[in-house]
Amino acid sequence: MEVQQFAVIGMGRFGSSLARELMELGHQVLGIDKSEEAIEEIVDDITHAVVADATDEEVLRSLGIRNFDCVIIGIGDNIQTSILVSIQVKELGVKKVVCKALSELHGRVLERLGVDRIVYPERDMGIRMAHHLVSPNLVDYIELSKDYTIAELSVPQCLDGVSLKALDSRGRFGCSIVALNKPNGDVIIAPTADDVLAANDVMVMIGKNRQIEEFEEDMMY
Amino acid sequence: MEVQQFAVIGMGRFGSSLARELMELGHQVLGIDKSEEAIEEIVDDITHAVVADATDEEVLRSLGIRNFDCVIIGIGDNIQTSILVSIQVKELGVKKVVCKALSELHGRVLERLGVDRIVYPERDMGIRMAHHLVSPNLVDYIELSKDYTIAELSVPQCLDGVSLKALDSRGRFGCSIVALNKPNGDVIIAPTADDVLAANDVMVMIGKNRQIEEFEEDMMY
Amino acid sequence: MEVQQFAVIGMGRFGSSLARELMELGHQVLGIDKSEEAIEEIVDDITHAVVADATDEEVLRSLGIRNFDCVIIGIGDNIQTSILVSIQVKELGVKKVVCKALSELHGRVLERLGVDRIVYPERDMGIRMAHHLVSPNLVDYIELSKDYTIAELSVPQCLDGVSLKALDSRGRFGCSIVALNKPNGDVIIAPTADDVLAANDVMVMIGKNRQIEEFEEDMMY
Amino acid sequence: MEVQQFAVIGMGRFGSSLARELMELGHQVLGIDKSEEAIEEIVDDITHAVVADATDEEVLRSLGIRNFDCVIIGIGDNIQTSILVSIQVKELGVKKVVCKALSELHGRVLERLGVDRIVYPERDMGIRMAHHLVSPNLVDYIELSKDYTIAELSVPQCLDGVSLKALDSRGRFGCSIVALNKPNGDVIIAPTADDVLAANDVMVMIGKNRQIEEFEEDMMY
Amino acid sequence: MEVQQFAVIGMGRFGSSLARELMELGHQVLGIDKSEEAIEEIVDDITHAVVADATDEEVLRSLGIRNFDCVIIGIGDNIQTSILVSIQVKELGVKKVVCKALSELHGRVLERLGVDRIVYPERDMGIRMAHHLVSPNLVDYIELSKDYTIAELSVPQCLDGVSLKALDSRGRFGCSIVALNKPNGDVIIAPTADDVLAANDVMVMIGKNRQIEEFEEDMMY
Amino acid sequence: MEVQQFAVIGMGRFGSSLARELMELGHQVLGIDKSEEAIEEIVDDITHAVVADATDEEVLRSLGIRNFDCVIIGIGDNIQTSILVSIQVKELGVKKVVCKALSELHGRVLERLGVDRIVYPERDMGIRMAHHLVSPNLVDYIELSKDYTIAELSVPQCLDGVSLKALDSRGRFGCSIVALNKPNGDVIIAPTADDVLAANDVMVMIGKNRQIEEFEEDMMY
Amino acid sequence: MEVQQFAVIGMGRFGSSLARELMELGHQVLGIDKSEEAIEEIVDDITHAVVADATDEEVLRSLGIRNFDCVIIGIGDNIQTSILVSIQVKELGVKKVVCKALSELHGRVLERLGVDRIVYPERDMGIRMAHHLVSPNLVDYIELSKDYTIAELSVPQCLDGVSLKALDSRGRFGCSIVALNKPNGDVIIAPTADDVLAANDVMVMIGKNRQIEEFEEDMMY
Amino acid sequence: MEVQQFAVIGMGRFGSSLARELMELGHQVLGIDKSEEAIEEIVDDITHAVVADATDEEVLRSLGIRNFDCVIIGIGDNIQTSILVSIQVKELGVKKVVCKALSELHGRVLERLGVDRIVYPERDMGIRMAHHLVSPNLVDYIELSKDYTIAELSVPQCLDGVSLKALDSRGRFGCSIVALNKPNGDVIIAPTADDVLAANDVMVMIGKNRQIEEFEEDMMY
Repeated sequence: MEVQQFAVIGMGRFGSSLARELMELGHQVLGIDKSEEAIEEIVDDITHAVVADATDEEVLRSLGIRNFDCVIIGIGDNIQTSILVSIQVKELGVKKVVCKALSELHGRVLERLGVDRIVYPERDMGIRMAHHLVSPNLVDYIELSKDYTIAELSVPQCLDGVSLKALDSRGRFGCSIVALNKPNGDVIIAPTADDVLAANDVMVMIGKNRQIEEFEEDMMY
Repeated sequence: MEVQQFAVIGMGRFGSSLARELMELGHQVLGIDKSEEAIEEIVDDITHAVVADATDEEVLRSLGIRNFDCVIIGIGDNIQTSILVSIQVKELGVKKVVCKALSELHGRVLERLGVDRIVYPERDMGIRMAHHLVSPNLVDYIELSKDYTIAELSVPQCLDGVSLKALDSRGRFGCSIVALNKPNGDVIIAPTADDVLAANDVMVMIGKNRQIEEFEEDMMY
Repeated sequence: MEVQQFAVIGMGRFGSSLARELMELGHQVLGIDKSEEAIEEIVDDITHAVVADATDEEVLRSLGIRNFDCVIIGIGDNIQTSILVSIQVKELGVKKVVCKALSELHGRVLERLGVDRIVYPERDMGIRMAHHLVSPNLVDYIELSKDYTIAELSVPQCLDGVSLKALDSRGRFGCSIVALNKPNGDVIIAPTADDVLAANDVMVMIGKNRQIEEFEEDMMY
Repeated sequence: MEVQQFAVIGMGRFGSSLARELMELGHQVLGIDKSEEAIEEIVDDITHAVVADATDEEVLRSLGIRNFDCVIIGIGDNIQTSILVSIQVKELGVKKVVCKALSELHGRVLERLGVDRIVYPERDMGIRMAHHLVSPNLVDYIELSKDYTIAELSVPQCLDGVSLKALDSRGRFGCSIVALNKPNGDVIIAPTADDVLAANDVMVMIGKNRQIEEFEEDMMY
Repeated sequence: MEVQQFAVIGMGRFGSSLARELMELGHQVLGIDKSEEAIEEIVDDITHAVVADATDEEVLRSLGIRNFDCVIIGIGDNIQTSILVSIQVKELGVKKVVCKALSELHGRVLERLGVDRIVYPERDMGIRMAHHLVSPNLVDYIELSKDYTIAELSVPQCLDGVSLKALDSRGRFGCSIVALNKPNGDVIIAPTADDVLAANDVMVMIGKNRQIEEFEEDMMY
Repeated sequence: MEVQQFAVIGMGRFGSSLARELMELGHQVLGIDKSEEAIEEIVDDITHAVVADATDEEVLRSLGIRNFDCVIIGIGDNIQTSILVSIQVKELGVKKVVCKALSELHGRVLERLGVDRIVYPERDMGIRMAHHLVSPNLVDYIELSKDYTIAELSVPQCLDGVSLKALDSRGRFGCSIVALNKPNGDVIIAPTADDVLAANDVMVMIGKNRQIEEFEEDMMY
Repeated sequence: MEVQQFAVIGMGRFGSSLARELMELGHQVLGIDKSEEAIEEIVDDITHAVVADATDEEVLRSLGIRNFDCVIIGIGDNIQTSILVSIQVKELGVKKVVCKALSELHGRVLERLGVDRIVYPERDMGIRMAHHLVSPNLVDYIELSKDYTIAELSVPQCLDGVSLKALDSRGRFGCSIVALNKPNGDVIIAPTADDVLAANDVMVMIGKNRQIEEFEEDMMY
Repeated sequence: MEVQQFAVIGMGRFGSSLARELMELGHQVLGIDKSEEAIEEIVDDITHAVVADATDEEVLRSLGIRNFDCVIIGIGDNIQTSILVSIQVKELGVKKVVCKALSELHGRVLERLGVDRIVYPERDMGIRMAHHLVSPNLVDYIELSKDYTIAELSVPQCLDGVSLKALDSRGRFGCSIVALNKPNGDVIIAPTADDVLAANDVMVMIGKNRQIEEFEEDMMY
């Protein structure tokens, strides 16, 4: 793995969580925030953390921002600051700039400024949460296309001891089980018809949205 | 599908995005916020939207909060309000209460109050974003366990025209391709060795973290 | 007497008065407040007083809060701070936690967090004051049950020189005089029929509320 | 009982609790506050409640303040307002004026203005709470003099079934039991040597502080 | 002349002007203000000037306030501070305390606290200014009683060269001229009938208000 | 007496006191303030009172400010507003404009703008108060020139029953008594040698500052 | 002349002055501001003036902003608002968008958003003022290139009565007089050698910066 | 050239741009601002820059303000400060004082205080911008009189290759071309009939407003 250099500007909840996860994944991270308190809290967890005002071009230059592989602007609560930092980071020639947007209009400005990727954490988590709320067994999911989803579903009590053959999800609902995740951490990839479900297993199912929905309603309550 | 009744308290970015997605999924949603402006913006998109002060127990009662299947508290910026609303909603006997937390300490209080599910949008999106940043081809992913992941990867130019047999991801890296998502929206579930990758396809791969990582590094740059 | 260790968080009027009285009663007290001014004013009166931010778990740990016999949270004006401190003190394993509540709702949250005793100084003093206002001779009182009270009543001029026999409070009103408190500090416990009242004595009477009330109205105006 | 007329200025926690208790005791209460919200909350519980600015002499006059038997000034958080209201109420000729003080200096000013009784709720509750904390069995108490106390103590498990004769509190510690309060609400006044204690009874004991303390330490742990 | 010791608390416009004039009159002045800026500006003009918080009794004590002949409280804009300082200064036993009042109600409180003299600069200057505005020749005046005034009037052009005999103010209007103030600074006390007025002289007249008014209207326009 | 038309802008303590005194003196007064509350309090005491923003030239015009004999600007606390109103009132052609100044620099600006008279109430009252403080018998005074003063002095007990002949103030100190003010309101103008002082009379003395001072020190303590 | 439609957003000093001048030049102007006060002041001077929040896309749409020939954004003091309005106006497809910038960084953002012309009033007036200050006779000027300027210079007393032939500005300094502006408003274009200068004429000179400077220094002081 | 000494008070956008241009023109500039940040930004660009409070007369004196040839007051946002500084600078005897005005009323006060030149940057730039907007080819212009203008116009494509003779602007529209500015920086003064226009040249035209307008409409679209 090639170790990359990230700079994260704004050490709020989004920025600090992102910075720590990048470290976890084996990369190097410089954290920047104008609040001394915020920097103190993160300083032991990342490669480098500095108290600095990122709206000042001189500061960005002196930190060598242009040499980072990717700069993430996670400024939390001030659209103006976010915009003024973004344009300067872009103009310094950083190849990849990611910026958190507070509203759709904010996002459109960032796009025009050439920001490479725009994130809407609150909006996106709202959407993900909606899916969890309506499918109580849903652990996680990926939307493959408008029609297809991969859903990670916890196996309810009523399916305990049922074999995949007996379940016949493909035959009855058209959706396949591509993996079985055991509570002990083992994962059975491409399980066979003889594999047997146990309560608290998590099964990974692929299929059309409507098929998975029907499966859940018929089999899992 | 059984239509469920949701109440969402706090129509900020998280709450409003969640409310709209629940409607999209075919359910009924009551939105509550003390700001007239916030309610005006959402009123046409959800079943019902009212301007009300959710810290007042009488208000919650008169809205019949106890009869909702699930109440989501998305109050954005005030820990005290979030806590005072949460305890009242719980005490009214609502079966499922979900609440957004602003910090880990806030989350621990909510847990003690009996809140059923606690969400940290900024923290969680920070983590997800970190994974995307280090794997440029990563579209989405599910962490199955500490070791296993399902990753949705876009097919780079260098793999255009390569058959799954030639790729032999299972033989060489130990990870399987369980679906192929074509740009036109078609999804090939459990593709065969004869299926051929095209640039801009998205493939769904399952395997150990380390295996997928090696696959990406060797095959996708 | 076993000397106990108390920590009082919040050196406002309630906290500082409580801390000083605990010292008076022979115990040891650590006082904590984030205001330097508040600490300066108490520092000479208690065992130990420190300026510290009690919302920070590290601070609580470093002060060894878990080793105190009892922690009193007297934070005066901020429900959120009071809650965040309470949960941390409880989680540190302190056996007895007492917390001042600013409202009934605040009190309910504290109860859920496992706070052992919740105090409402303003509400309770309001109730006590009401009793004093309607009985001008009332010095102090204990509510024994819904019906019975022990009342400490100052002896008015009109009863000066009257013997307990002549008064016959038990025969005429059904309530007994169990002690007589002389202005010089002497206390006659279980006075006899021959003891004589003097103006400015204080007599301790036990009986039903209604009986004492009638005694006061008939004999003391 | 002669029904009295009270006016309470300031419907905060102290004022509203006092006003409700006065109603409970059968008297008439006018509540005054400049906050509409505070008045709305109390209006159904007391004789009369009005939104008014008590610093305006005309307002006090038009409410007929001079005709009340007693005026309580419970203004919560503003020394200046408390002082300006107090002088006007006194000058209107009210016979009895009670005022809450926020600090000792505030109390001294009120005294000079002729306020008849000055209350320090937070300070006084701090002192009471200290006594409860050091005597875990203490339910309530009255300080008769510097040396004597009446203490209401809950009977611990270890004294269950012990007769007063066997206990011999007077012989061994010098303090008498003047009443026994049973969990069902009955109160035995002047119990005899044959009366038997039960766990969860509450006994009322009179004696010197030191004697009661020794009794508690020897008999109740 | 006996040199007196004055302390002036509050170095605003009133306090600093008073302090400087007392120095001018040959006395000693200690100036106190909590603003460093205010003290810097006065420090060279008076005997002693200190930055101190006069609401703190310890501070007043350590400055030896009780030993001053007179303490003037000129606090400008805060009724509460003015009251709290006044009571402490009085209680320290200062013989003469003068205090500026911001309103009549404020003045009544100060009176009750035993303040010896209460000043209303804005109100009093408003009254003085009114007299000047309606009598353009009025230089200064003293109200002797409800009916009598001493008025200092500048002599208009039309009276230039007129002898007091010709003027006959006593015969025609009933008011006497008791002094003539010449532009060169000379003052003729008890001028005779032969003394002659000159334009720009200032004459001091004593009489009933109505008489002086008639004199002004008939003779001076 | 010719009735004059005054407009007073700013109904603070200075402005309202001045306006009321002008009414008392028989003139007509229009009061202007931007605060509704201030106008309500004065409206019954003066000819006319309006809520209006005096910084708006149109407002000044529509009130016919140019037709008033004199405009007094008593704006209390805002130098900028005072200046902007002053220039407009002057430019409207008002013959006599009087303005209160908050500082000497403010006064210099007003002078340049052509304001006819500038008043410093706090500064001037500070000076007057200084004279009263150093002469306890001083009731009021007029400074005739640098050297001469008219002083109104209350007669102390030690001079009770002394005739002016015996006192011989002119012979011994060089200063004359020009009037005697009796407690019943009578004023004896030009008292004779046979007139006798009584305690609580007030005598009006004219003389050199030094002479009056010596008289006070020798005769009045 | 073709009448054009302008919309001016922000009726501050810049926007309102621009709007009035456009009217003067015979065009149509819509003025928009969120302050009612600002709109009231301009409403009689321009075609149309509305109170509206220009950050709301719906508002811009409903005002038909896309149909205007040119939109000027003169928002005075808020970079964020200026940016958010600019992007929306651009996206609505307005052909020509002009925007005032508060700083150079602000200007760079606006440029990226596609704003057609960016104005810096304070900066530009600072530069113009500098030229006036160093050339006291300079009335106005145009910088033709880095080296050449057209300067409008007032004729000083010392050149009164001098003919252009005698002056020989072209021969001696290399710069030509291309027009003479007489005080009565007449303008002589391309004056001849016989034309004579008069004090208070204004002459228009064209030449190299250095030449004009030398002319001024030698001839005009 | 005589080097002049300028002091600029207020280093905002107007003041700093003016100060830099004065340096550019070869003069000496002292910059004054109370903000340390503002001074830091300009300190390397001008002769001298100091952090100081210009409302303090002592400060102005100690900086030797009276010795400067010209003082410019560019204070940006506070009318009161601008006025108080202006009067002091004038009273110190500075020969030439220039001040930025925020409103017409502000300007009138400054005029009365004797300020020599008053600038309205926002208002004046609004007017200039209006002219540019209605004449798309206008580069810059000077208003010679009510009727005559010198306009700097860029040559459009449609006039490329046209000789001045063919154009005959004087014959057909009555306005002359007095200079031609070539893209390479050359300027042809008083071009002849044989000179040929090229697109992107800028021509300087002198004439009546109406004539130039007609020329633009007929020839340049």
